Amino acid sequence: MTSATILSDLGTEILIPICAVIGILFSLFQWYLVSQVKLVAEKPDADGKNGFTESLIEEEEGVNDHTVVQKCAEIQNAISEGATSFLFTEYQYVGVFMVIFAVLIFVFLGSVEGFSTSNKTCTYDATKMCKPALMTAVFSTVSFLLGAITSVVSGFLGMKIATYANARTTLEARKGVSKAFIVAFRSGAVMGFLLAANGLLVLYITINLFKIYYGDDWEGLFESITGYGLGGSSMALFGRVGGGIYTKAADVGADLVGKIERNIPEDDPRNPAVIADNVGDNVGDIAGMGSDLFGSYAESSCAALVVASISSFGNTHDFTAMMYPLTVSSVGILVCLITTLFATDFFEVKTVKQIEPSLKNQLIISTVLMTIGIAIVSWIALPSSFTIFNFGTQKVVKNWQLFLCVCVGLWAGLIIGFVTEYYTSNAYSPVQDVADSCRTGAATNVIFGLALGYKSVIIPIFAIAISIFVSFTFAAMYGVAVAALGMLSTIATGLAIDAYGPISDNAGGIAEMAGMSHRIRERTDALDAAGNTTAAIGKGFAIGSAALVSLALFGAFVSRAEITTVDVLTPKVFIGLLVGAMLPYWFSAMTMKSVGKAALKMVEEVRRQFNTIPGLMEGTAKPDYATCVKISTDASIKEMIPPGALVMLTPLIVGIFFGVETLSGVLAGSLVSGVQIAISASNTGGAWDNAKKYIEAGVSEHAKSLGPKGSDPHKAAVIGDTIGDPLKDTSGPSLNILIKLMAVESLVFAPFFATHGGLLFKLF
Amino acid sequence: MTSATILSDLGTEILIPICAVIGILFSLFQWYLVSQVKLVAEKPDADGKNGFTESLIEEEEGVNDHTVVQKCAEIQNAISEGATSFLFTEYQYVGVFMVIFAVLIFVFLGSVEGFSTSNKTCTYDATKMCKPALMTAVFSTVSFLLGAITSVVSGFLGMKIATYANARTTLEARKGVSKAFIVAFRSGAVMGFLLAANGLLVLYITINLFKIYYGDDWEGLFESITGYGLGGSSMALFGRVGGGIYTKAADVGADLVGKIERNIPEDDPRNPAVIADNVGDNVGDIAGMGSDLFGSYAESSCAALVVASISSFGNTHDFTAMMYPLTVSSVGILVCLITTLFATDFFEVKTVKQIEPSLKNQLIISTVLMTIGIAIVSWIALPSSFTIFNFGTQKVVKNWQLFLCVCVGLWAGLIIGFVTEYYTSNAYSPVQDVADSCRTGAATNVIFGLALGYKSVIIPIFAIAISIFVSFTFAAMYGVAVAALGMLSTIATGLAIDAYGPISDNAGGIAEMAGMSHRIRERTDALDAAGNTTAAIGKGFAIGSAALVSLALFGAFVSRAEITTVDVLTPKVFIGLLVGAMLPYWFSAMTMKSVGKAALKMVEEVRRQFNTIPGLMEGTAKPDYATCVKISTDASIKEMIPPGALVMLTPLIVGIFFGVETLSGVLAGSLVSGVQIAISASNTGGAWDNAKKYIEAGVSEHAKSLGPKGSDPHKAAVIGDTIGDPLKDTSGPSLNILIKLMAVESLVFAPFFATHGGLLFKLF
Repeated sequence: MTSATILSDLGTEILIPICAVIGILFSLFQWYLVSQVKLVAEKPDADGKNGFTESLIEEEEGVNDHTVVQKCAEIQNAISEGATSFLFTEYQYVGVFMVIFAVLIFVFLGSVEGFSTSNKTCTYDATKMCKPALMTAVFSTVSFLLGAITSVVSGFLGMKIATYANARTTLEARKGVSKAFIVAFRSGAVMGFLLAANGLLVLYITINLFKIYYGDDWEGLFESITGYGLGGSSMALFGRVGGGIYTKAADVGADLVGKIERNIPEDDPRNPAVIADNVGDNVGDIAGMGSDLFGSYAESSCAALVVASISSFGNTHDFTAMMYPLTVSSVGILVCLITTLFATDFFEVKTVKQIEPSLKNQLIISTVLMTIGIAIVSWIALPSSFTIFNFGTQKVVKNWQLFLCVCVGLWAGLIIGFVTEYYTSNAYSPVQDVADSCRTGAATNVIFGLALGYKSVIIPIFAIAISIFVSFTFAAMYGVAVAALGMLSTIATGLAIDAYGPISDNAGGIAEMAGMSHRIRERTDALDAAGNTTAAIGKGFAIGSAALVSLALFGAFVSRAEITTVDVLTPKVFIGLLVGAMLPYWFSAMTMKSVGKAALKMVEEVRRQFNTIPGLMEGTAKPDYATCVKISTDASIKEMIPPGALVMLTPLIVGIFFGVETLSGVLAGSLVSGVQIAISASNTGGAWDNAKKYIEAGVSEHAKSLGPKGSDPHKAAVIGDTIGDPLKDTSGPSLNILIKLMAVESLVFAPFFATHGGLLFKLF
Repeated sequence: MTSATILSDLGTEILIPICAVIGILFSLFQWYLVSQVKLVAEKPDADGKNGFTESLIEEEEGVNDHTVVQKCAEIQNAISEGATSFLFTEYQYVGVFMVIFAVLIFVFLGSVEGFSTSNKTCTYDATKMCKPALMTAVFSTVSFLLGAITSVVSGFLGMKIATYANARTTLEARKGVSKAFIVAFRSGAVMGFLLAANGLLVLYITINLFKIYYGDDWEGLFESITGYGLGGSSMALFGRVGGGIYTKAADVGADLVGKIERNIPEDDPRNPAVIADNVGDNVGDIAGMGSDLFGSYAESSCAALVVASISSFGNTHDFTAMMYPLTVSSVGILVCLITTLFATDFFEVKTVKQIEPSLKNQLIISTVLMTIGIAIVSWIALPSSFTIFNFGTQKVVKNWQLFLCVCVGLWAGLIIGFVTEYYTSNAYSPVQDVADSCRTGAATNVIFGLALGYKSVIIPIFAIAISIFVSFTFAAMYGVAVAALGMLSTIATGLAIDAYGPISDNAGGIAEMAGMSHRIRERTDALDAAGNTTAAIGKGFAIGSAALVSLALFGAFVSRAEITTVDVLTPKVFIGLLVGAMLPYWFSAMTMKSVGKAALKMVEEVRRQFNTIPGLMEGTAKPDYATCVKISTDASIKEMIPPGALVMLTPLIVGIFFGVETLSGVLAGSLVSGVQIAISASNTGGAWDNAKKYIEAGVSEHAKSLGPKGSDPHKAAVIGDTIGDPLKDTSGPSLNILIKLMAVESLVFAPFFATHGGLLFKLF
């Protein structure tokens, strides 16, 4: 059935690592460029100039004096230390979990064949012998740990880069919006490329190392590789939830007392929660997002590989075709590299108005180039015709069909990105309507904001549905998995523009805290407003790809659990569907309440400090930042456990007691319901944030009529923004992980559930 | 297979109409009792007493003077006229729709056999001859119109009763909380019994009349009866959406200017929107809710009957067994009658604290008694063993299994009621926590409120899931249908305690507007606070039963569309599931935005009147109530069309272009997703409303520390309450109808879709 591929196996073995290495080198080069911005005050030249020649002339006197730069450096240090210390605390707890879960994987999977060490006949090809289940248990555990560690490293490095870049962005903002934009964007690129390349390389090396043991048993090999996805996603869960609670407890707490009660600006150094707030941006939006997208990437690769291993690629041991998902990602790195140059080198952002179009062009350019890339890869790395496992049968697929599967995912991502931009950017009517509704107070603002979020779901869902329909029809679950990979193939660019947001946000905070001029703050605010939109776009990608990924994982799970139909018309499945659709609500209730509770504590502490520290409001005394950092840390560590347990235990409990049919229902239910809440939550939050910024910036006549800061409509907008915080940065984005993680966990444990699951129905 | 039933066919023919007539008579008697409260001021007796002897002594002087009573009568008239005129306007538009849709039903169903007038072989029993599809089209159209008219009458009568009772409740409140409670509750009972008995009687008569034509062709007979459910539910849709937008536009608009800007109390006669607000309670909460629950009742009966007609009951023409769903409802009326006496005659509500327990007892008593009732009916009206159609096969069922199916629905309803009470009553910690979060402002209030709503979904979903599992396992879709009927069997009591809420709300409004003493307002407020909880409980019932009903309808649809599996693992079904889960969001976006937009218009008008009418704030000039009434009317008529079209057209478009598999996915998706949003929306709204009332009432130390009215926490609570308005009274409850209506519409059009549907897939 399978014809040969144009690209030889050796070519594949070379191409993938080379692309990964290029990505890492490019990332290091960007880092080098960012590091050229010095965080020490430069001595005036002999001729009395400050070294920046004209650029700084536009700024007020004294802005470049030694104190300001030193202050920036100090604040950056404080933020970086806070973030590092939080992540280490988080990783300690998560480490314990990781060990326990690793043991669980080993025991559960080992028990499938009763810990037998002898080879068994393969599940999908009874004529061959496969490695014992016990060894698959061992390798699954190892790949789980590898995935977890890679995820942690991805998040941690992202945070390090972001906290390295924020003060540098502030300092560059003195020279103009263009320079600041480039620093922020380059730093985002460092993270994007490092993460994409690193994830690819580790996966590639792992496969090659495991192959030494597994040899021709590809079924077992790629079964054990699924642990990599599980590891990646379970760390992402804690990163997202813990980081999300941390950042929003601090943010909400700081805003409630600072902005609303004390009427001091955002990021004012007098606010005791301000450092915690800035730390939060880095641990939540950067480290959490990094782990999340890495998880999606790892999972969609694993889902594609595990299906491919029982299709003709695996049966005929066609290595190049088997590695197709990784080759697509490799080419994606090259495409993103070229795309990045468009933002940093080929064109220049000169004015505030060019920021958003420039970021939008990144999406368009990467998508167009990647389409060509996918066409080439599909042509050289796939046989012209092959078969794909389709729930018990083998389906014939052509290479052009697979090309279309990847493309449909890629372009659906672009559409989701654009729709998200439309609904969350204050350049368009939806956000302006929400801002306008602030005239009549916070209540109408909230009503309009919620309605906007609900409405913003429509087109993305159609885009996802069409991708699923096309890819599913052409190539069953393999098609869906590669569609997800298509959407994630430009992950380096996606992460770059996404990380750019919190970096700009922090830069603004540092400018405020260092007491820099108002005009610098205006520039960073402009960067940040675009950042809110790109953050929402990033979340759109994350959730869109999560939907595809979890469906692919769900399909892989069903295949491995040896079910051929998941019939809604059976009570077992239907109750799974119903309860599954409820889980995102349960999860959101937990995370939102956690943020609310932690924020209340933070408010009390901030109020206490304002009331008891003499001279704090006058700026003569320093607040106690550390206590606020501790409140956020303690709250997030404590509060991330229940939602984490809900997500991690549900598949185990359902699988063990109710069996694979009900579990299938739960996965499908949580998928179709979670996607909607996740999209609407993050768009509602993004819209509220930008409605507030729209009033604050007061660029148009309409916006001016609502402002200025401190007016009643502005106060109403601040309330909306505060409500949106946990929606867009805690509960919403964590839901991606909920749906992916439950699916990948079910996939890893599928052989166990199929053998020992469904106890309750077996008893009665 | 089928053994004889203890109850003879003749007995059944007598029992059902007798129970219905008893219900109607009881309802008229209650009406008579309410009418004993006279709306004319009584002349003082010869001895100078006011006729009430001691009761009124506790009130201030002058309260019973002629003016106050006359004022109450005037206000009641204004409300009643406003409501009547709105409903007539609404019915005109809906009438046009009804005619168009009736034609559509006739044409689509008639075309199934190409408008042939000759008999055909039956679908499920090829040995028999059935009536032509053309006649089924005719009778379906007739039963659609009958259902629609019954629904309209139910809603209209409910409104009439409520507007008859509200001023009477106010006047009785002068004598004490006990008297006022009884009037409000009795009026609720009038509506409950009239509606339950009327719905039963019309259905019973229709079946008997249709039988004259159909004779032994029960398959065709009960196929055409499904139109009754469709008619009932489509009117309910417009009633809920139109009424919901009306009431909340007025309520939100009145609150935003009156309470927040002008700092005048709720229902202050100076507020121009106050009459529109009170009219809204009657057209939205009363007429809308009445139509909604009538729709559920009609649909679950139809779903049960259509499945029974192709099971052994239908095959062997066992009339008594066939009528089992109606017999259960008949006994339900008797049970509710006894239950009502517990509230009005056996025990007396003496203090404010006894109101909630008394209403709660209604639920418990009716459930316990009904359990006995169901046992008796299952014993005498069912053969001991029979078969039920189960997607192509016949499943053997015992009568005790069916008893359990009905019971599990009934008790699940009670659990949902209790959970709803727990989450929305200010006697428990969830609402108190929400109230407490108002300390830190509106933002935390909203965050906590949303989290509460999400959390309140958990137990109801498990209750529904268990009901589905039990009833589905025992008796397939017939089991689910009778479980829904079990939940609705105590509908008369449910509606009574539900209608009691808006009546008390209106009574408070009238007291305020008539300028009655503060203590009377306190009493009506206490009644109203309990009413908010019962309204939430009513919504819980409505949504719980809607979930079961739509699953039953879904099952009936699948059976009639001749599908045997709905496999999630096919792209057609999965995209249906995903898009279906999105529909409730789309729908909510429309309805919430409609309320927001209409409220903005209302705000402008109210502001205009306050600014331009001299002496309005001082109370020396009268506001222009009529303009506000017109704004609400116009907005709701205009805005109910797009969401109505979404719900009505989706099944048609999906069925015609994508076919029955995708439509199955859409139905399942919207069901599992819609239930969650509906429950969380109505509980969030109810909790916010009662958190506000908790602060206002200031009963506990904790509540006092948050108040009084006008304090910052109270202002934050008012914002939450305003946001909750569209959630709990417009978008949330309309979702019940969305999921039911799409299912029943699919069921009615199933033969058409099965024959001519899926054009798109046929073309490609």
